[in-house]
Amino acid sequence: MRIIGLDPGLRATGWGIIHAEGNRLSHVAHGIIRSNPDDELAYRLRSLHDALMELLQEWQPQAAAVEETFVNKNPASTLKLGQARGVVLLAPAQAGLPVAEYAATEVKKAVVGTGRADKDQVHAMVKRLLPGCNVTGTDAADALAVAICHAHNAATSRRIMAAEVRAAR
Amino acid sequence: MRIIGLDPGLRATGWGIIHAEGNRLSHVAHGIIRSNPDDELAYRLRSLHDALMELLQEWQPQAAAVEETFVNKNPASTLKLGQARGVVLLAPAQAGLPVAEYAATEVKKAVVGTGRADKDQVHAMVKRLLPGCNVTGTDAADALAVAICHAHNAATSRRIMAAEVRAAR
Repeated sequence: MRIIGLDPGLRATGWGIIHAEGNRLSHVAHGIIRSNPDDELAYRLRSLHDALMELLQEWQPQAAAVEETFVNKNPASTLKLGQARGVVLLAPAQAGLPVAEYAATEVKKAVVGTGRADKDQVHAMVKRLLPGCNVTGTDAADALAVAICHAHNAATSRRIMAAEVRAAR
Repeated sequence: MRIIGLDPGLRATGWGIIHAEGNRLSHVAHGIIRSNPDDELAYRLRSLHDALMELLQEWQPQAAAVEETFVNKNPASTLKLGQARGVVLLAPAQAGLPVAEYAATEVKKAVVGTGRADKDQVHAMVKRLLPGCNVTGTDAADALAVAICHAHNAATSRRIMAAEVRAAR
């Protein structure tokens, strides 16, 4: 299964694509979509949407996982993040993909083993779990981390389902 | 000029279309786009986007005006509103329209004359300014109000420009 992970932001949206086969993960691609702060908000969102649709077209992932935006104490920042996040959720839904959402603590737990890991620990573990990915910058690393989190969750769901099928026999 | 006003919300997005010729305004159409709370967030945003694109196609407005979301004290609600608002801003930008944003107080001032007007006053003035519109419900009335606000602003900008041209002669 090819999974796209997305870490939304108006200034920069990180994306990362991994291939998951059971518990075996491999890196496919990653990057950052930036919008021009001089453009009007609606047109920044449009350029973000265009870039996402191009990515989905180019890489044809089968599932999307989006990090739940950190809800900080500044309502104006939360609103801005929300606007970018709306577009980031919309694009994979338009491509017909299942779109999962994970809280930052779930992502950290899946990748590092603790929900209280810092950015550097997540970054280091992403590099270890996806050899050769050479990711730089936290936006793309966070996006790969949410893809890894989804792969783990999907694998766990499959194991649970298999166990339930066995139990029901 | 045909203007679409939009009052974004995940549960309900109000829309209203007016025709403005100088200071003369007339009502064209209005309504509410609702999303199914049982659907996943990404798919609720997709149905909102689909409905907006259909409206823009059907009514062919030449400008869009979006109400600035009230930033309340609950970050989770602000994030939710932001997500809907991102999609509401995106759609007219994809249709190539200029997209203006107005704070709720600006809208109230343009329609009622004071930024501290309540919902009922806005509703009553929208009905008076757009005879025969028969709007019910505050979501669509607010959308018509933001369209009226944009018409006033556009008329003011034209008057200022005309005055500047005269002064420069």
